[in-house]
This record gives sequence, structure tokens and C-alpha cells, in this order.
Amino acid sequence: MTSLQLSAKEDMLERFLDASARGDLTQVSTLLSHVPSLINQTGYSGWTGLMLAARNGHYEVVEALLSHGHISNLLGRADDGSQRVLPGSDPHQQENYFSRETLDRLSAKRADTVWLEDKQSDPDTVYLLFYNLSPMVRSSQEDDNAGGETKLCRFRYEAVKDLLQKPATVLIFLGVEKRKTPSSSSSSQTVDGIQEPPAWFAINTDDAAAELLKRCRERNCSFPKTPNRDLLKLNEEEAGVVAQARSVLAWHSRYSFCPTCGSSTTLEEGGYKRSCLNLDCRSLKGVHNTCYPRVDPVVIMLVIHPDGNQCLLGRKKIFPVGMFSCLAGFIEPGEAMEEAVRREVEEESGVKVGPVQYVSCQPWPMPSNLMIGCLAVAISTDIKVDENEIEEARWFPRQQVIDSFRGAHPALTMPPRQTIAHQLIRHWIGMNSNL
Amino acid sequence: MTSLQLSAKEDMLERFLDASARGDLTQVSTLLSHVPSLINQTGYSGWTGLMLAARNGHYEVVEALLSHGHISNLLGRADDGSQRVLPGSDPHQQENYFSRETLDRLSAKRADTVWLEDKQSDPDTVYLLFYNLSPMVRSSQEDDNAGGETKLCRFRYEAVKDLLQKPATVLIFLGVEKRKTPSSSSSSQTVDGIQEPPAWFAINTDDAAAELLKRCRERNCSFPKTPNRDLLKLNEEEAGVVAQARSVLAWHSRYSFCPTCGSSTTLEEGGYKRSCLNLDCRSLKGVHNTCYPRVDPVVIMLVIHPDGNQCLLGRKKIFPVGMFSCLAGFIEPGEAMEEAVRREVEEESGVKVGPVQYVSCQPWPMPSNLMIGCLAVAISTDIKVDENEIEEARWFPRQQVIDSFRGAHPALTMPPRQTIAHQLIRHWIGMNSNL
Repeated sequence: MTSLQLSAKEDMLERFLDASARGDLTQVSTLLSHVPSLINQTGYSGWTGLMLAARNGHYEVVEALLSHGHISNLLGRADDGSQRVLPGSDPHQQENYFSRETLDRLSAKRADTVWLEDKQSDPDTVYLLFYNLSPMVRSSQEDDNAGGETKLCRFRYEAVKDLLQKPATVLIFLGVEKRKTPSSSSSSQTVDGIQEPPAWFAINTDDAAAELLKRCRERNCSFPKTPNRDLLKLNEEEAGVVAQARSVLAWHSRYSFCPTCGSSTTLEEGGYKRSCLNLDCRSLKGVHNTCYPRVDPVVIMLVIHPDGNQCLLGRKKIFPVGMFSCLAGFIEPGEAMEEAVRREVEEESGVKVGPVQYVSCQPWPMPSNLMIGCLAVAISTDIKVDENEIEEARWFPRQQVIDSFRGAHPALTMPPRQTIAHQLIRHWIGMNSNL
Repeated sequence: MTSLQLSAKEDMLERFLDASARGDLTQVSTLLSHVPSLINQTGYSGWTGLMLAARNGHYEVVEALLSHGHISNLLGRADDGSQRVLPGSDPHQQENYFSRETLDRLSAKRADTVWLEDKQSDPDTVYLLFYNLSPMVRSSQEDDNAGGETKLCRFRYEAVKDLLQKPATVLIFLGVEKRKTPSSSSSSQTVDGIQEPPAWFAINTDDAAAELLKRCRERNCSFPKTPNRDLLKLNEEEAGVVAQARSVLAWHSRYSFCPTCGSSTTLEEGGYKRSCLNLDCRSLKGVHNTCYPRVDPVVIMLVIHPDGNQCLLGRKKIFPVGMFSCLAGFIEPGEAMEEAVRREVEEESGVKVGPVQYVSCQPWPMPSNLMIGCLAVAISTDIKVDENEIEEARWFPRQQVIDSFRGAHPALTMPPRQTIAHQLIRHWIGMNSNL
């Protein structure tokens, strides 16, 4: 686990917000002159400097901030009218790591084998190479332990076409790049001279990792061995692509045989379907989920004490020392999300939960979970831990959590920012604190 | 499909709400004297009579309603303080059909084979009998087509113990009845004379249906042949149990073989796990989703026109004549709920979606979907239907939808009340209408 301290950039934002809240016009102006974009940013409270200054009645600061422009959206009002249409909607909904969609999946093209084959040999097409479900990445630094960002290695058709011929290779069509072209998403390859955006594919192979690495001309390439940690070093856009690719590849790795009859299966529809090769199999009559990739919904929840000022966090034995996080568990068959939250919290901690509120969700490709993030209000407070599930659970006062986020708590560590647990806890901290 | 007209009970509620909104004290008092519970009920707008009277300034009606008591909760404020702790939470969240949990699943007991075996032969234990994934039910009327309610047939151990010995029988532990006993959920069978609540199991068997039906002493028993329609006739409590049982049984029916290696599997943990019998199989090393029941998350969404007064509904070829419903689709691997909403709506109808708001969810045991219900705001309005998915999609003005709910539209039919689609549309109708 890398350091969880606020970065210099985040630190500057917090200073700006603090100055705005206190009405310190001099510091606000100084910080803004260095980093003008601070005016539009929200801290972990979800508030901008303008909101804080307005709330606390520092009108000279409000005036200064407004005079810097960028007025629309600043007061938390969407400028597209959606707040009027959908009053409860959150115009600034949290986008979690692994959530960003940079590709248009073009699912209608998956069954078009001619189009897919054309795309495979297109010189603009981008291939990602996976070994043992990990993508080949390039570190930005020689020392991989320094916590630097990694980037996906991208290949062209010529560099991978031999792999496409091998029987053990699994090929997934990921989509085409989202692009604003004059003719939006035309379906033919090159009509009227308008170029289609590049297609992306993922390849998983069982060739030796060392041999695969030789294909890349860049330095510092590798296949990460600890996905839970190393896949969190990508930028947001590449993380979104990896979430899709790794989940589908993991499905192929685990679901090679028909669960209904035990026969072998064949890959279809650009990697989004596996059909049983036994023509008498029930799974071929009608539509069966056995033929499609699996997504496992999980509830992950921050439970709030009835007093509103403490939250329930737990730790598993495998967590780094001092780290506590949200409780979580798989949604069971025939169970609503809200009921799953209540059942899991009571099973793991003994605490009973009343109202549950959805906040945001996160695909988690280890192997293919959908983490559904909720806040929940406790209606009992006694803790009785199920030691098969977690090692410890405790109520933490809001201030201790804030201190931990600021790196100012001696013992308590929050989960990393790429996790929805981290974002849920920040969301709560910002909800109705006095800052 | 049964008639979708409002029942007499719903009709009376609407008359009560209408009278409250108009300030008709005489009618309000008359209706209340017949059905006192009207005071606490909300109509499809989500408002109580008190809210409507208060909103429209009919203070004599407000006073009369308040004097009837039941004051807490009436103004939309939870009485447990959760509104203070979680300001955005909805104290009256919609409970959908198939969502109610009347059993405590006691998942920790699933691995306790001694306890489970004791429960199997306990005379208080309740067994439900499934054939071809349908539960044995008893119709309340001779004529099954009259749309009457059906009830689950319940069996005791003595009536089914021979079935438990048969190799093709699948047995699922569903949980124990939720009961408020002095010692809450004690784990031993009969400690200090306190009786544990009855356990429930589901059995699926391939014995001939006619033979199975002879086991029941009641009349009008059957195994419904069209689950999508017949399972909607249960009461809310039994529907919740069937949602759990049918989803897990369907998983066993489709996943008898190990998807990783094709070997046979064995049922464990009260029916919540299948382990591969090939000791060399990868699925036995660590935790693998192949061993656990599948739940398929689906987004289902009501798309609202940017003008706020129309909604987008579509129809599939298989729908009854005149019926339109919400768009829906499976969440793909590596995809957030909100992104799945945007992708599916654009794929099926060509309409682009901006903000998305979660409303409520519904387990749908055909075979094991989790329907995640959302409202979404369109940011484009031109419709271009994907005819592989739906036959037609149209913008419907709010008033047409209201007329359809009231049975006053000549052609447009809404989906049945047991579906989350129905509830989402009602939710929107009630959101900011002028009633």
C-alpha cells in the first residue's frame, strides 16, 4: 500500500478552501493567482470555496471569487436543466476509479464477424496484451516501488498477429474510441472519407511472459503480479478499459466449460458469449445466463451511528496495519440491495441498520464485481464481530476520520483513494460537517 | 395479463386523497370513518392526504386529520431521527414485489451440517415443493383465470422425507422465520425452554408432477407453468421467499458442472455452494465465483424528456397489445450502473442520457436478476429504435400515463403493479405533478 497522505495538489486545495471558509481574502487571492483552477474545485467536503465563503458570510471573498468568473455550476446547480427535471439528482456525482468509459462498446457490432475481422487487421486498431489476466504496463520510473503511475502498453496488428492464430489465445473486442466526429458513430468503415475511430481489443495468451515482454520496444515493461495493488496505478481512463477487459478475460478463464452439461464451449460475439458445443445441451434452447459473462453485485456500505457523528469501520486480517474500511458483502439471490446491506452489517458486526441510501458504484475487476456503495443509518450500536468475516469493527468519531484523511492520525489509515470505500467515507465527512 | 384497473381499495384511497387535496372536509371524514387506515396511506403520488391538504392550504382538513392521531411520520419525517443523520434518504422507500424478507437467512448456519440436519427433521420445519422450478401453490378460486391470489403449499418433514433421500432432489436452506422472541435469534435449538423459530427449506425434484400433487391434502393445487405470470399472484411475503428459493434452485439446475474444468460438482452449505469433485481443479484453490450462486444485475430505467413532462417507454414484440414499459438491459463487466443506463438507452432507442438517479431495486427470479431501477434525464430526444431489441419506443406525455393508470386511456397499458417498471413510472408521475 502506498502512502495515503494528501498530495501537494490536494494540500493546496484544502488550504484554499480553508482560507475561503475563514474569509481570508489575501490568502484566497494569492492561491488563486498561482492556481486559477482552484475556483472550480471541491474538497473532500464536496464544497467549493465559493460555497464555503457564502455559507460563512464572507461576502468580500464571495465577490472576489465571482469576479474570477466561471460562475455557472459554482453554486452546485447543473446548467443543463436536469435539476429541474430530476430534483433529487446529484449533478456532481462521484466518478469512481475503474468507472470511466473511454470506449463506445458498440455491442451491436459483436455479432458482425466481417466487421470485427476487418477491424482486427486495421492498422489503427489498438491491442492490449494480457498474461495471466494482468495487462502489460510500463512504469514511469525505474523504481517500481516509488508509487509512480503506470501506462498500458499498446500494440498494433503487426506486432500481435501471430498470437491471434494460436488456439489458446482469447480475443475480446472492447469497443471503439469515443470521438466527436461530424457523422456520429457511422457504421461503415470509411464512408465519404470520414475515418472511423480506432477499435480496441484485448488479448490474453499463455505464451511465456518473458517472450511477450520482448514484443514491446519500451523500457520498464512488466505484467503486474498483484492486481489488487498494481492495477490501481493506472490513470482513470486506462483503468476503465482494464476493468472491462480483465473482467471479461477472467470470465473466459473460469468458464471454459458449459456449467449445464460439462461440455466444451466456443467463444462468440467478440468475446461476450460462450456457446456449448454439445448440440443437445439445454443451454442452447432460449437465452441462458450460462452463455454470458458474469457480474457479481456487492454492497459496500458506510454505516453511520444514530448520533450522526460516528461511523462503523471494520478490518480484515489481510489489511495493512491500522487500516479500517467499510463493511461489504455479496448480494444473494432473491435479495434487494437494501436488504443485503442490513443482512451483511448485522452478520459481520451485530449492528442493526435502518434507512439505506445509494451513493455511487464501482466496477471492481477482481474478477468481476460491481461494488454498490451505500450510506446506512444504524438503529443499534452494540458491536459483536463475526470473526470469520472480519477481525475487528469499531465506531470512529468523525474527527478521527478527518484526521486520518489529513495524515494527522497516529494509527488509523483509510483505504486508498481508488476504492469506493475511501470515496464513501469522504462523502460522509463532507455531508453535514461543520468543517 | 390480468386487468390493470385500480382495485376498489386503491380507488377509495384515491378518492380520499382527492378530497384532501380539494379540502372537502365532509368526504374526508366520511371515508376515514369507513377506513381509518387511509390516514397513513400514500397514493401513487407518494403523498398522504395530510400532505396534500397542508400543501393546498386546507387547514380545517389538516386539523381533522391530525386529530385522528397517527401523527408521527405523517409529514414525511422518519421518527427514528434518520432524516437528521442521512438528509437525502427516503423514509418511504418503495418496497417492490419479490423484495420482502420474511426469513432470516442465517448464512452462518449453512456450514453447520449438524444443525441443518436437526432442522430438517424438526416437526416445525416448513418445506416448499418445487417441480421444474415452480412452487406448488393453491388457488383461492376454482377458476384459475379469474386472477385470484395463490398461496404456497407448505409441507412438514413427514410428508417429504422420502424425497430427501432421492439423489436428484435439490435441497435449499432458506432461513428461519423472523420473530421477536425474548432471546433474539439464539443459536441453540431449545435452550431454557425458548423455542427457536421454524426453519424453511425448498425442495426441487424431478418426480412426476402428478405424483407430487397427490402429497397435498388441499384442493386446487398446481405447479404453475408460466412463472413470469403466475408467480405474480402470491402475496408479498410469500413472493419474497419464492424469489430466494427459485433463484437458487435455478442456479443448481443450470450449474451442475464445474465451468472451470467440466467435472461434476457437489452441493454444499445448505445449497449455497457447489464444489468441484475434481481435486486438481483450480476452482478449489482460493475463493472462486464459480462455486457460488449467480445474481445478474440489470438496469431498468424511466427516461424523462428534457421538458420534464414526457417519458420514454418502449415495447417488445412479446408484450400484450398496447403495453409499453421502461427500457432495461444487463450491466456488463467493468461497467458502472449509470454507464449501463446510458449505453442501453442509446443502443435501444438512440436517445442520449445525462443524469441518472437510483430509485429502488427488485429481485426478479427468472432466473436470478437484480433489477436496479433508475430515473434518467434525456439530453437528446430523437428516437431511433434498435429493432433487434424493441419493436417501438415513444415519448408519452405525463397525462397519457396518468390516464392509463386510471384505466382511462383507450390504448396505452402500463406493466403490472408487481413490476419495478410500474413502480418507477408511478414514482415519476408523483414526483412533481400538479395532481
